[in-house]
Order: sequence, then C-alpha cells, then structure tokens
Amino acid sequence: MAKKRWFPRVSGAPEPLTFSVERQVRFEEVDAVGIVWHGRYPSYFEDARVALGAQYGLGYMDFYAQGILAPIKKMHIDYHWPLRFEDPFTIEGRWHWSEAARLNYEFILRNAEQQIVTSGYSVQMLLDLEHNLLVVPPPFYQEFLQRWKEGTL
Amino acid sequence: MAKKRWFPRVSGAPEPLTFSVERQVRFEEVDAVGIVWHGRYPSYFEDARVALGAQYGLGYMDFYAQGILAPIKKMHIDYHWPLRFEDPFTIEGRWHWSEAARLNYEFILRNAEQQIVTSGYSVQMLLDLEHNLLVVPPPFYQEFLQRWKEGTL
Amino acid sequence: MAKKRWFPRVSGAPEPLTFSVERQVRFEEVDAVGIVWHGRYPSYFEDARVALGAQYGLGYMDFYAQGILAPIKKMHIDYHWPLRFEDPFTIEGRWHWSEAARLNYEFILRNAEQQIVTSGYSVQMLLDLEHNLLVVPPPFYQEFLQRWKEGTL
Amino acid sequence: MAKKRWFPRVSGAPEPLTFSVERQVRFEEVDAVGIVWHGRYPSYFEDARVALGAQYGLGYMDFYAQGILAPIKKMHIDYHWPLRFEDPFTIEGRWHWSEAARLNYEFILRNAEQQIVTSGYSVQMLLDLEHNLLVVPPPFYQEFLQRWKEGTL
Repeated sequence: MAKKRWFPRVSGAPEPLTFSVERQVRFEEVDAVGIVWHGRYPSYFEDARVALGAQYGLGYMDFYAQGILAPIKKMHIDYHWPLRFEDPFTIEGRWHWSEAARLNYEFILRNAEQQIVTSGYSVQMLLDLEHNLLVVPPPFYQEFLQRWKEGTL
Repeated sequence: MAKKRWFPRVSGAPEPLTFSVERQVRFEEVDAVGIVWHGRYPSYFEDARVALGAQYGLGYMDFYAQGILAPIKKMHIDYHWPLRFEDPFTIEGRWHWSEAARLNYEFILRNAEQQIVTSGYSVQMLLDLEHNLLVVPPPFYQEFLQRWKEGTL
Repeated sequence: MAKKRWFPRVSGAPEPLTFSVERQVRFEEVDAVGIVWHGRYPSYFEDARVALGAQYGLGYMDFYAQGILAPIKKMHIDYHWPLRFEDPFTIEGRWHWSEAARLNYEFILRNAEQQIVTSGYSVQMLLDLEHNLLVVPPPFYQEFLQRWKEGTL
Repeated sequence: MAKKRWFPRVSGAPEPLTFSVERQVRFEEVDAVGIVWHGRYPSYFEDARVALGAQYGLGYMDFYAQGILAPIKKMHIDYHWPLRFEDPFTIEGRWHWSEAARLNYEFILRNAEQQIVTSGYSVQMLLDLEHNLLVVPPPFYQEFLQRWKEGTL
C-alpha cells in the first residue's frame, strides 16, 4: 500500500531487490518514555541499506571506488508502533528499480509478532566527485541494472 | 513552496509560531565523506522542537504533566546542501496551526550564507497515557489554541 | 596485564564470567578521518555488558525488577588501534568477581586479526530506588554470587 | 584532588589553558531511567575539547593542516551525579602543560548548583599522516608551547 505510493511500479520493471537484517533494541536507543527515540530509525534504515549494498556488491564504498557519491536527498519515516529495550525486530530493505541515476530504497520494520512497526524510504542521487549530478547512470551501474533485469545478480 | 504542500494554510488560520536555534556542526556528527551524516538531522529538528515547546510553554514534559503523550508519527527530510565540521547553521522551527489533536512542525535549516540546506517536517499525535488517540484536543490545549488565535501567547 | 591492574584477582576468587559479542563497524560510527570516533566505544562496551547480563540472568532490568539501580560510576578506555567502516570485531566482556555491592566489568575489543584494538573497564554501584548506596549486596545478588562461586550459574 | 593525580603539575610549568562551554541536556541524551546515558559524556568532553582548540587556535583541523593527527589514546570518566532532561550544565576543559608530543585534557562538568557532576580526562598522541608516533613535538607546536609559557597565547 504505502510502498506503492512511494515508488510506483512501472510495468515491465523487475522485482525489487530485498534483504533483511535482524536487530535487537539497544539500551542507548531508548528514550525517557521507554520507547526507541524516533531519531534512531535512520540508523536502522542504514543497517538495511548497507546490508543490501553488501549483498548485491554495490554499497557506498563500491560507488566511491568508481568515483561516484550517492548522498541521501530525501528520507521519510512513518511510525506505527513503538519498540522497547531488548525488543527483537527485522529491518527489510527493498531496492526499487529505477533507470535514472538514483537509488530508491524502501524500509519495513517488523516486531517479533510480524507487525509493521515502522516504514519509510530514502532516495539517493548519484554525483561525480565534483558533486555534479549525473544525468545518466554510469556504465558500471548500467551493467548492474542490466543484470538486475536479467535476474543474474 | 515545499512547506505549502506539507501543511496547507487554511484560510483564517493564525500564522505559524516560529523559533530559531543557532548551532554549529560537531565533530561526531560528520561522516567518513566529511559531511553531516543524514541521520543526525532528526536531532537538529528536535533542538528546534524542544526550543519551540520551551518558548511557548508547551513541550514534551508540559504535555506529559497533563497526562498526554505526543509521539512522532511521521517525519520527512529533504537534503539540499551538505553541512561540514564547524559550519554554523540555524534551525528554524515553525509550528503550524491545526485544530485537530496533532502537532504539525516544519523545520528549515540555513547555513551562514542563508541558503536552505535542509528542510522537513514532523507530525505528532496526542495520546492519553493508555496510548489511546485523542480525537478532540484536551481542554488545556484548546485554551492554548484559543490564545494562539487571539495572538496572546 | 592492564586488566590485572584494573581488577586485581583476590586469591580464592572464582574466575570472571565472560561473554563475547560479534559486531561490524557501522557507517555512522566512523568519523571524518575514517576511523571509529572514540566516543562510540561506550556503546560497544554496553553491547557486551547487556549480553553478559542476559547470559547470566542479571541485566539492568533484572536489577530494576528487584528495586535496584546499577548506574555506572567509572569508565576507562584505552585505544590501541583504530577500527574502520565495515571492520568486523569482537567485544569480550569479563565480569570480575567482587563481594562488594558493585559490578566490575572489563572489555576487550579484537579485530579480525585478533589484535586487541581497544580495552577498558566500567564500575557500577548498586543503589536502592531512593538512590542510597547499598553497603551490603542484596539477598538475590548474594545468592547469585554464591552460585558463581559454586560454578552453578 | 582527582585532577592532580591525573596530570601532576611539574614545578615551573605554566597554568593549564581553560575554556568553558554552556550546554543543556537534550532529549535524546536521556535514557530509559531518566538520566543522561553514561555513554553521552565523551560527546560533552568533545564539545570542550573542540572549544579549547578553537579558543587557542589549535584544533583537530589545525593539526591536520600541519600534517599531524591527534587521535585519542586514553579516556577516563568518573560519574558523581546524574543529569536530567533540560538540566543546564557547564563543561570546563583544562589543557594541561606537557612538553611531550601529547595533549592532556581534563574535563569538569558542573550543574546549575555548581556541583561537580562528572569529571574525567583524555590523552591524545601526535602522529604524522603515516601514523608514526612523533617523539618530538613538531615546530609549530613547540612554538605554541613557547607562547603558552610566555603567557602570550
């Protein structure tokens, strides 16, 4: 539902790449009211973003090694249910297909009961090292998209 | 522009309450690429949110003292320009009028050149201590809204 | 060596309780110079402290359930080698025997090459909920010490 | 008292350089028990360290501009009293004289009643950009020491 609004699926586009990370709420992440402070969630999203990058061989440092920066331009978080100290939870990251020079990630956090506790997304733009926006994805990334499309990642 | 989309101004509604906080980028807020890590911005927003609450006598603890929780349900951040170590910047908080039991805050960060470097918003819902959503704002908050409307805050 | 200075072993005292946690450096933990910012290590120590508590059934919340607070009174960190983004490392926690109303923890971080990269300790005091220092350990904790001594934890 | 033990004053050495920073406890710094989480204090120490560097023209970036790294090798914190949300406090940084290639900082946090709530120290070593320990302080730093001694900083 929500995710459909965020990154509408273009007909013919391949399925999102997904990866999930298991976590447990740390003491320092909880606030004075006893729930995870809302500002910690970007850090949970990052865990899934990094894991997705590692899983598919295209993380921050892989881009950087190609002379590409991928800064975050937009982030959105919806908080449905709180998490508390020591609660186990799962962060599902979904990398949505785009042919543009941008990375569209969606995040879904679920508690032990599989309730969606938090969801959101981030958008990254691809820049060269002089911080110029790339209009066209660079060759190594186009090749990555090609393999994604063919299902050979 | 953006802010108009986020919290459209109802005709006849009073002006937003505003407050600005001066800050400087701390060493620990900067990432390996030399810019403020995107996940620190909720903490900057919080600085303005707390300052707005203190300025108008209606912060987290004031709500709590009235038996009301005000958890964040939604947060959005747009990143326009990076900030670097020791950069001074201003966080402007704008509390937008709403007659519902919700708090609509908008945030605008500007660097020393008065460029907008980051903007965003958060939405808080008002709950009682049993975590039931309040449909109608509680009396002390209605009184606050009344004084806001009259310009006597 | 260092650890002997921190918590000298009393003759006849039982061996420390130990537990190790596997971690990997997260992007947000790294500073502008490309190494883990020194101020993140208390958070690594906490990971081992919480894991030790969970392993032996005596964590923050177990103390709290008995009407006991266990705040940290002292912390020390020695930095030997840096850690970098995505470096895997191990945090070994060692709970050193003490018959007093205090918790003596030692922490040893090792990188993938088993080098000690960081070491340190923390001391916690046991307080009642009115924040009075306990002179004598409470009964449930004395029982815990007894089982520790007998090797039946 | 404590500080004398940490960095004993050599006879004839100039007085420490001092600088104080005013702060207020932020919401995210407070833990589930309602006090500042012990692991936030390195960040308070850093505020005073950076302010001292700025005050005397010799911060991280000034060293770096001279091809010198100044990583933290040792940190110690004693926790005397807790701080709570919105508590104002002062961080006094004291830069203690040393003729060696090391930076000795002491930190004293006081609450509004001027009670010492936390104290501690850090030691930094000076390295060249290949991470070799400097045995002798570099010329620009020797000159700094000279002006410190003459009271002309």
